[in-house]
Order: sequence, then structure tokens, then C-alpha cells
Amino acid sequence: MRTDSDDDRDSPEGPGASHIPPTIYVIKFNRNARRQAVEFLLERIESKQKFGGAELFVRCEPQTPGEGLVVHVSATKIKLLEIAEATELQKTTAEGLVQELSVRELDQFLHGGLTLETILTPAEREYCVRHELDGIVAREEQCVPGYPSLHFFPGQSVVDVYLAEELIVSMYPLHERCYLDEVASNWYKSIFLSAPLDKIRDYFGESIAMYFSFLSFYTMLLLVPAILGLAQMMLNIDSFSEYTFYAVFNLIWVTVFLEVWKRHCCGLAYRWGTLERDTGAGEMVRRNHRGELRRNPVTNRLEPHYPQWKTRAKLYLVSVPSVGLCVMAALYLMMMAFWAEEHIIDWKKHYGSIAGFFLNVPSAVYAAVVWLLNFYYRKLAAFLTEWENHRTQRDHDWHRMAKLVVFEFVNNFSSLFYIAFYIQDMDMLCSQVATMLIVTQMINHFQEALLPLVVRKAYNKFSSAVMEQLSQNPSLAPYVAPVPRPVYRDGVEAQPIPVLSLDHKDPRIQQAKEEGQMDPYTDTYDDYLEMFLQFGYVFLFSSVYPMAAFWALLNNVLELKTDAFKLCRVMQRPSVKKCSDIGVWQNCFELLGCIAVATNCALLCMSPKLRRAAPGFSTIEWVLMFVVLEHLILIGKMALMWLVPDQPAWVREALDKIAYHSKMALRSERGKRTRRQLSRRFRSVHGVPRSGSRSRGTTPVAATTAANGSVRRRDY
Amino acid sequence: MRTDSDDDRDSPEGPGASHIPPTIYVIKFNRNARRQAVEFLLERIESKQKFGGAELFVRCEPQTPGEGLVVHVSATKIKLLEIAEATELQKTTAEGLVQELSVRELDQFLHGGLTLETILTPAEREYCVRHELDGIVAREEQCVPGYPSLHFFPGQSVVDVYLAEELIVSMYPLHERCYLDEVASNWYKSIFLSAPLDKIRDYFGESIAMYFSFLSFYTMLLLVPAILGLAQMMLNIDSFSEYTFYAVFNLIWVTVFLEVWKRHCCGLAYRWGTLERDTGAGEMVRRNHRGELRRNPVTNRLEPHYPQWKTRAKLYLVSVPSVGLCVMAALYLMMMAFWAEEHIIDWKKHYGSIAGFFLNVPSAVYAAVVWLLNFYYRKLAAFLTEWENHRTQRDHDWHRMAKLVVFEFVNNFSSLFYIAFYIQDMDMLCSQVATMLIVTQMINHFQEALLPLVVRKAYNKFSSAVMEQLSQNPSLAPYVAPVPRPVYRDGVEAQPIPVLSLDHKDPRIQQAKEEGQMDPYTDTYDDYLEMFLQFGYVFLFSSVYPMAAFWALLNNVLELKTDAFKLCRVMQRPSVKKCSDIGVWQNCFELLGCIAVATNCALLCMSPKLRRAAPGFSTIEWVLMFVVLEHLILIGKMALMWLVPDQPAWVREALDKIAYHSKMALRSERGKRTRRQLSRRFRSVHGVPRSGSRSRGTTPVAATTAANGSVRRRDY
Repeated sequence: MRTDSDDDRDSPEGPGASHIPPTIYVIKFNRNARRQAVEFLLERIESKQKFGGAELFVRCEPQTPGEGLVVHVSATKIKLLEIAEATELQKTTAEGLVQELSVRELDQFLHGGLTLETILTPAEREYCVRHELDGIVAREEQCVPGYPSLHFFPGQSVVDVYLAEELIVSMYPLHERCYLDEVASNWYKSIFLSAPLDKIRDYFGESIAMYFSFLSFYTMLLLVPAILGLAQMMLNIDSFSEYTFYAVFNLIWVTVFLEVWKRHCCGLAYRWGTLERDTGAGEMVRRNHRGELRRNPVTNRLEPHYPQWKTRAKLYLVSVPSVGLCVMAALYLMMMAFWAEEHIIDWKKHYGSIAGFFLNVPSAVYAAVVWLLNFYYRKLAAFLTEWENHRTQRDHDWHRMAKLVVFEFVNNFSSLFYIAFYIQDMDMLCSQVATMLIVTQMINHFQEALLPLVVRKAYNKFSSAVMEQLSQNPSLAPYVAPVPRPVYRDGVEAQPIPVLSLDHKDPRIQQAKEEGQMDPYTDTYDDYLEMFLQFGYVFLFSSVYPMAAFWALLNNVLELKTDAFKLCRVMQRPSVKKCSDIGVWQNCFELLGCIAVATNCALLCMSPKLRRAAPGFSTIEWVLMFVVLEHLILIGKMALMWLVPDQPAWVREALDKIAYHSKMALRSERGKRTRRQLSRRFRSVHGVPRSGSRSRGTTPVAATTAANGSVRRRDY
Repeated sequence: MRTDSDDDRDSPEGPGASHIPPTIYVIKFNRNARRQAVEFLLERIESKQKFGGAELFVRCEPQTPGEGLVVHVSATKIKLLEIAEATELQKTTAEGLVQELSVRELDQFLHGGLTLETILTPAEREYCVRHELDGIVAREEQCVPGYPSLHFFPGQSVVDVYLAEELIVSMYPLHERCYLDEVASNWYKSIFLSAPLDKIRDYFGESIAMYFSFLSFYTMLLLVPAILGLAQMMLNIDSFSEYTFYAVFNLIWVTVFLEVWKRHCCGLAYRWGTLERDTGAGEMVRRNHRGELRRNPVTNRLEPHYPQWKTRAKLYLVSVPSVGLCVMAALYLMMMAFWAEEHIIDWKKHYGSIAGFFLNVPSAVYAAVVWLLNFYYRKLAAFLTEWENHRTQRDHDWHRMAKLVVFEFVNNFSSLFYIAFYIQDMDMLCSQVATMLIVTQMINHFQEALLPLVVRKAYNKFSSAVMEQLSQNPSLAPYVAPVPRPVYRDGVEAQPIPVLSLDHKDPRIQQAKEEGQMDPYTDTYDDYLEMFLQFGYVFLFSSVYPMAAFWALLNNVLELKTDAFKLCRVMQRPSVKKCSDIGVWQNCFELLGCIAVATNCALLCMSPKLRRAAPGFSTIEWVLMFVVLEHLILIGKMALMWLVPDQPAWVREALDKIAYHSKMALRSERGKRTRRQLSRRFRSVHGVPRSGSRSRGTTPVAATTAANGSVRRRDY
């Protein structure tokens, strides 16, 4: 009666134990990991929810002694839907509203050709499995089995501990090749600005799709300043009014862009179901949040609780001063570099070309030191943020990024500020901006996409050549591969871990191996940072170097393609992150927009070109002009930010609809209020016998009205 | 079996038709109002909800031909509770959360000695009755009965039309004397700053309580600047640093105050159950909002709909330019006055004391013209806002007030700005600020509380004297009272309106007459405006006149008492308004705080006193100092505003709790999801016979796990 069809892969009575649904996660254990630890985790992944398990499928790759165990994790469609409901995944209903997926009302969500198979996107499947894996937490266990020294705190994520202690070497989702190919082909074919955002979101998740959406949007923004900048350079504009116009236009344009983006982003987040994720006390506590276990007053769940004032105190008393010190150090370094350069120029005058040879040494040393400083600063920022012990992941990320961005800002822009406002050399500023903008972009492209690919290709070729050599000449083996050490040291060394194995010929084994060699994609931080710095170069000094927008535009068109290539072909499949906006970056860009108003107004009033164009003004009038201009633009900006609502009207309407529906549902659940109940209640309180009103068969108010009516009728 | 006790006043079978619960509203009809119109409204007030009625009690005062009908409106406790639930009134539950009143769960709200009698405060009772009266809307009627020319649009409030067309002469809630006396005695006895806010709220409603809360809070704020200002004057401080310190301290202090107030106000609003009133499309449409009837997409209710872009277009294309023109006119007028004064001073030099006689003419003329302009401007603002046709009452109020405040700001402060930054005469500025602050405050106190009382007392004495004369000498009557005109002109002139009458000796008749002679209390606008102008005088120019804070403090202590007296003894009982904050005033005060930063920094840098204290600086350095100082303070302000959360932690927690509870309730209402349902669904989709899984009696996932377990056990 049953056939061995594709559908049956899901069913528990499926034909072979090795036959499981497509692999979603691959976990590679350390080859030195102790047997108990490995078994403990695998058991928890498979066991029932009530025993703290994740109820997922696990199959291992064929085990070879001396190699770490590699397991493939998967889930049935039923389980995935269950998880989706539990994690409050939001999907579009047939009505067009975005609501939490509810299995009971599943039919509402199956529209437009969606079936039970396709209702969850690859990103959502991946998210669900990851969510369950992360949801495996320490219960009554005090430490990692087999490692008495590795303590758990109650509620700590087991997988996190394993990753931190390198019991798990790597853990990555496996690409879904056919879907990926579809996304990739769409992407490359599309005209240069419009990335297939919904497809990207379905495969890579919201945070990456949001990045590409922002990048496209920002590139579009650059089009107008780029054209204006080009026109200004070609026409060689020199008049005061046109010069000012360009600068002011740019500043307003940036504000408009950021406002429009905020609305656009809100629309995207709504469509993707990530808007209004719970931000209150109902929000999930960050994994690894430390604190004594206490009941959450809102949800009544047992959670680690850490007093907020301690976080605040750590933040303001330690972290902020530390960051301040680092910034000071960076500034000092920058000054030193300039000072050294000046000295060398002095020497050059005295000693000629020998000193000229050292002319570039200070900036080279400065660059190297900054690179080093940056490396350690990142570690410091991560450490400080972890130590501050924020309650939610969102806060944690926000504070870590804020720390990093401040430092990057200082490192990248302080020298420009120094040139602009201390040395006041506009030509030097202009060339410096151009150099930094163009050179860093070139390096980035190379470093980001081409280098890893080339390196991997070369490594693969090399290792396969070595392997070939080895197979021909076994005596070489000890020199290239380390001696296999005993894997399981608890007596039963040779015995494999008791877990069902995949078929030897399963193509997933090869795929897992290939993708395991790729670099993991951590997050969008570096990509946004690149945009942020570019934004700074373009808009902070746009009044002295209008061509910046043009170069930035060119770069971004290329960037869109490089990033797409990187994601689809060079990196491991990234794990899905949900987000409703670009987070800290929105604030950063807005802040930069405000700083740009001050710098541009100042540059305008200082520019010798402009001063020549209007020679009638005295210095004090120039300064006053700066004050007036800056205030006017800032007021305009504020008014614009305040007048434009953050949510587009259609999103507001949809949210209102959802809120209204749920309010009505709640009210109907509470039951219909009845007048009778109310009046009965009154009677019983006032001691009037209930039979009195009962016999009349009407409620008091109705009776009153009737009585009134009759009285009036009598009066007529 | 039944006794004629006090409790029975509520019961429909009560002893006499004249015996109704305490009067809440008094409606005085025009004596020329046509009979049909009066009868129509009375019938609608009394009739059942399903016929569009309000289900309230109506009793008239004994009717005398030639006098307008006076009716008393009241409601049973049951009806009041019903309305309270329908209007989503929020009350504190026993748990301490503030939730919508639900009759079903009434016991939750009865705690701390509250009974069914006292659960609704006087303000809430008044609010409920007013809400029902306003809820009487035109249905199929095309026009006011008896007046074919007065058209209704569907859904228009009947009472509003009657008031606008003066068919109703006045309509006011009646004081609850015993409660009022309790509030008043508490108020006068309390030490000068702490008004009994909760009692005020219970009796006068949220908007008035909010005003007093703000006033107390603001007065407290003034304490520190007042002391510092006094100290500065007494110690005759002259040093640069201390002078600057005072100014900067004041600016930061204002910001801190506004932030703390925002949080405090949020806490009050939460406790009073007005926080988070629906602001979306679910919010009630403003009465008198015009537009074609259309179903609201969110609530599906039939509502007048007016395209938002039209409102926007009217606002930006007509209203904003009109306001701009008026402001220009006011500025022009101000300049003219200064110009005229200058000319007269010139003449004085030439012609001596004769011209000196005219020296004060320009400012007197200016004051008179501004007063007149203001009068017409208020009408213009009301007309424009009505014409803009905002959807909600909140938007309407906001836009009306914003228009008024802009004009008041210009009228009151433009001359000071002119003196400070154009004439640059600091001594003149100082004396001008002092004069305006002290004189206007004196006038206000007199005008506000004493004058109306004196006038009313005098009028009462006069009219009673006349009446006495009349009763002794009836032949005088035609000269003092107008000849009674026929009231009802539709044939049955003498016949009274068929409505139950109050007893002749009912004390409420006398009370209604007395309170009908009092002035109605419109809204808190004038009171806030007074504070706003004072705030401006104190903080905009605090660096030249530090004593302002001291005078303002003195005034406010007096103001707290005068306002209390005015409300309790001089005015009619105000109708209750709900509010969650001080609305447009919060924005106004914040804006003023920002402007104050600019003015104070500028004044500091211009002050000759300060310049003498630090003579080493050149003019350009002073200007740059202004720029730096202003930017630093503004950045500090922004950071503070951004760092301090608007809601106190406890309010956020409470709101989270409520949201979480309602979410959980909604979820439980949707029913428990079952694995069985999901798996069955899958089976039916995949065509696997349901008996297959049924016979096993377990769900697929469970079965899988079990199977896995057994496989593993076999492996061991």
C-alpha cells in the first residue's frame, strides 16, 4: 500500500534509517571530544521536548577512527511547522495581513500556490532548526558530561558551550543548491540596482536582505549627487550661489534619503514579518546572559536576572571611559604622525633627498599601528560588551557595534578633520579624501571576494596534489598528516558512537565537506562599515570634493555584484538573523548627516574659492553666515524628521487592523457582557429579592424606559 | 416589601416619577426653540440604544411659559457602568494593573473599600453621561425637527448642532457639592506645592489634574534657579566663569526638568488609565469631521471619510502661509512701534517736553492693536483648523493650539529679541523682561479669579434688589424684563412639553440656577499659555536677568491657589477631558528650551559685563566661543533626551504585563494546537490513509523518536 516516494522521506516509517529529510545543519565535533559529551548532545538533539530535547533528526557521516564525528541535523516538515508556530514566525495571510503563523488556521496562510511543503522558506527552515539547537539548555546537569571542569549555569545553551570550548569545531547550515542557483541566476541577470530582495530574504534571511535593500537604496541616492558633482566639475562652476546650492542640496538630500529609507525599511520589515518583534520584558533573554535565576515578573518564566543598574554602571563608569581613552590614544597617534611628517619635511629642506626618502614612513607606520590597534580594540569591545551583560541580544549587538563605530570613525576621519580645520589646506583635504575613498574601496573589493576564492582554489589544488603524492608514496604520510591520536579515551576506543549513519554514496557528504572548507559568513558588520565610511567620505566633505559621490556610485554598483558573488559562491551559507531595521547603523548614518551639516557649512565659509567669489565679506560676517546657514539647515532637517511619520500609512493601517482584530477577539473571548448579569448583581448587593425583577421578565433599565414611555403617552 | 430607602432611587419602580438619581448634566433650551426640536432631543436622550437613544434619565424643572425649558439629565448606576465599559474606561485592578473596566470581571476592580457605588469617580460619571449625550447622532433625519433649514449630515452629533444653533443656550455638569467641598478643603490646607492630584483627577478629570501636576512640578523646578538667581544678585557676581556656569546650568536644568516631567507624566497617565489611548484608525473620529460616509477599513464602522492629502494640502498651502502672514504683520507692527518711538525721541530733542508727552503713545497703540489682532487671530485659527478637517479631536486640538502658540510667541517675545539682538541694549532688555513678567502676572491674577467673582456678586446683589423692587411695584415690570414672547409657535402654545418634572422643592433647581450664572470653564489653554510665556521670560533671557526665576516662583505659588479657587468656587463645573500628557505644550516647552540655548549663549557672548571680565578675546573669538558653547550644550541636550527613556521602568513593566496577558489570552482563545491535528492534516494531504496512523495511536514525531530510541538501543 505504501510507496517509497519522495513524500515518504518525512514519514517515520520510512524505508531506511539513513533516509532523512534534507540536511539543514552540519555539526563537526572535535576529534578529541570525549565520547560522553558527544553522546549527550546527540541524545538531547533527538529526544523529546519534555526531556529538554529538540526532537530533530540526526545522522552521522560514516565514522572513521581518528576523525571528528560529523553529523547532519534535519527535521520533519511537521516539526518545522511546530517550531515556526512556537517561535511566532509571521507570514502573510490570504487577507494580505502579516500575522503569526498558527497551525490551527493554517489554511489562511496557504494561498497563492503555497503548499505545506513550500510554506516555510529555506531561511525559515534554517532559522527553526537553529532555534531548536540553541534551545537545548543545561537542566539539572552541572557540567559537560566527561568534562567535570566545564561548568554549566542553569539555562545555558549547550551548543554555545560546546562551540566556546571547541568541542564542536564548526557548525554550519548546508546550502540548498537548487534554490541557491535560482537566487544567484536571478541576481546576476537583474539590472544593476534591483536585487531580487524577496528571494534573497527567502534564502538568506532578513538581515542580509535588509543589507542589500539598503545598499541598493543608498546607491540610488548617490545618483543625483554624482550627476551634480560631475556637472559641477565639468562646467567648472565658480559662483558663490551655485557652490552653496550644491552643498545645501546635498545635506537636505541626505536627510530626505534617510527618512524615505526609514519608511521603506519599515514596509519591508512589515512584509517580512519582523516588525514589532517583542521588545519588552517578554523578549527572549540573550543566551549567555548571566545572573541569578528569578521569575520574570511579566511572563513568569524562570530567567537569569541581572540588575539593570549594574549594567548601566559598568557601561558609564568603565566602558565609556575606556572607549574614550582608546579614542584619545588614536587621536594622539594621528597627531604624532602629522608632527613626524612635518619634521621630516623640515629635515628635507636641510638635508635634501635623503630625508625625502623617509617622507612616507610616518603615515605607513601610522597605518600599521592603527591596524594593530583596531585588532585589539575589537577584542576589547567584545569583552566589554559581554562583561556589561546586556539582557537582550539586540542591546548587546547595539552596544558592541556602537563601540566599534566610534573608533572606526575616529581612525578614518580624524586626519581629515585635522587637515580641514587645523591645517586648513583645502587642496590637501581634497586629495586625501580622493585617495582614501578610492584606495580603500579597491582594497576592499579585492580582499572581500577575489582573495578568499583564489586562496581556496589554490589550497584545494595544493592539497589534492599532496594527497595524490601521498597515495602514490605512503611513506610520506607521517610528514604531512599528524599521527592519529586515540579519539575516545574511555576504554571502548574503537567502538563508534551509536547514531544512525548516512549512506556512503549520499551526495550530502561531499557537499558538507566542500562547504566546510569555505569561510563562514559572520555578519553584515563589515559590509555596513564599508558603506558608513564611504558615506562619510562622500558627504562630510562634499563641498570641497564633489566628485566623491561619483566614485562611490561606481564602487557600489560593483559592490552589489561582489557581495552577491561572495554570498552565493565564496562563503558558507550564513545563519539566518531576523531584524526589523538596520539597527545601530540608522543612528550612525543620521548622526553623520548632522555632523555633515556642520562640516560642510564650515568648509563653505572657509573655502578660499568661495571667499574669492564674494570678497565683500569680513571674517566675522563669514562666521556669522556659517552660524545662520548651519542653524537653518539643522532646523530644516529636524522639521523634516519630525513631520515625516516613520511608518508608511499602509503599514499603520495593517497594524491597526491586526491590533483591532486581536482586541475584538480578546473581548469576545471574555464573553458578552449582559445587562441581566449586571442588574442581578445590583439586586443582590442591595438586598432586593431577585424574584421581584424576575417576575417582570425585563431588565430594570428596559423597564424604566418602558415606564417612562407609558408615562409620557399618558401625558399626551 | 419594598422600602423607600436611598438605594431605591436607582430602581425603576421607584416611588415617584420626580425621584431620579443625582443630576449630572443640566441642559437649558432656548425659550424660542420650537417644540418639535426640544421633544426630539428629549426623546432621543431617553429612548433605547437600538433606536439611537442614550438611555438616560430626564427630568425638567417646573415649566413656566415664556422661559426656556431646563432639564436635568442623569443615569442609573447600572447604565453608568455599562457606558464605562463601552468607552473602555481603565481602572486599577486588585493586582495593581490598570486595565479596561469589564463588568464581567467587576470583582477584580472592587478592592480597597471600593463598592459598586464608588467605583466610578464623579469625573467618570460625568464623562460617561457626556459621552452618551454626544453619542446621540443624526440617523435618518435630514434636518432638525421643526427647522427644515438646519440640515444634519449623517452621523453628526445632535447636541453639537443644537449648541451651535443656540437651540440649547447652555449645557453644564452640576457640581457634586459634598465631593467638591472635600477636594477644596484638602487643596487649601495642603502645603503650597503639593495639590491633592488624585482627588482633583477624581473630581475634575485628567486634563485639569495634569495641568496642576505640571504647574506644581514646574514650580518645583523654579526653586533652584530662583535661589541661584537670588544668590547671584546678592553676591553681585561678576566673574566670567560663574556667570557662564549659571547660564549653562539653567539650560541643562531645563532639559533635565522636561525629561523628568515626561516620565512623571507618563506614570500619572498610566495610573489614571489614559496612557496609550488608541491612536490608530480605531480611534474615534472627531465629531463634526466632514466627509463622505465610508466603511473604516480597520473597524468596518461607517464613518465620514476625508482624504488625508486634502487636509495636508490645506494645512501646508493655506494655513501655514496664512499664519506666516499674520506673524509677519505682527513683526511689522512691532517694528513700526519701535520706529515711532525713536522718532518721538528725536522730536523730543527738538521740541522738548510737548513731544515727551507722546512718548508712551506708540507702545500703548501697539499693545491695543496686538490685543485686537489677537482677538481676530483666534477666530482665524479656529476657522482654519475646522476647515482643515482633521480626523481626530487630538489632531484638531494640536493644530489649533500650535497656530495660537506661534502667534503668541511672536507677539510676546519679538520685541525682546529686537532689543537684545538688534538694538543690543542689555539694560533695556533687562528692564523690559522684568516689566513684562511682573505686570502681566499681576493682571492675570486679578483678571482670572477676583474679577469674575466680584462682578458676579455685584450682579447678584443688583438683580435681587431689582427683583425686590419689582415685587413691590409690579407696574415697573415691563421696563426691566422683556415681554414674554410665545414660546411654542405651533398651535398648542400653552401646553407644556410632556416630560416628567422635578419636585418644586428639589434643591437641585436652586443649584442649577446658581451655577448657570457662573462662567463656564472652557479649557486649560489660557493657563498653560500663561506658564509658557513665563517660561519664556525666565529662561530665554536668564543670563541677563537671573531674578526672573524668583518672581516666577512667587507668582506660581500664588497661581496654584488662585487656580484652585477659580475652579472650585468661581467657575461652572468643567466637563471632563481625558489626556495622557500635556499635548502640544510639551513640544512648545521643549522647543523653547532649545531656543533658550541659542539666545543665552548669544547673550553671554554679547554681554558687555562678560566682555569686560575677559578682555583678552577678540570679537571673532567671542563668536566662535558662542558656536562651540551652543553646540556643546545642544549635543548634551540631545544626548540626554535620547538616553532617558520616556517611560519609567515600572510603567513599561506594567504595560508589558498587560500586553503579555492579553496575548496569552488570545492564544488560549485560539485553542491549543495539537500535534495530532497537524499530523492528520499532513496525512490527508499526502494521501496516506488515516487509519495507518490511527491504529498506532501515536503521533508521527513521537513514533519517530520511539523508533530512533529502539534503534539506538539495539546498537548498544
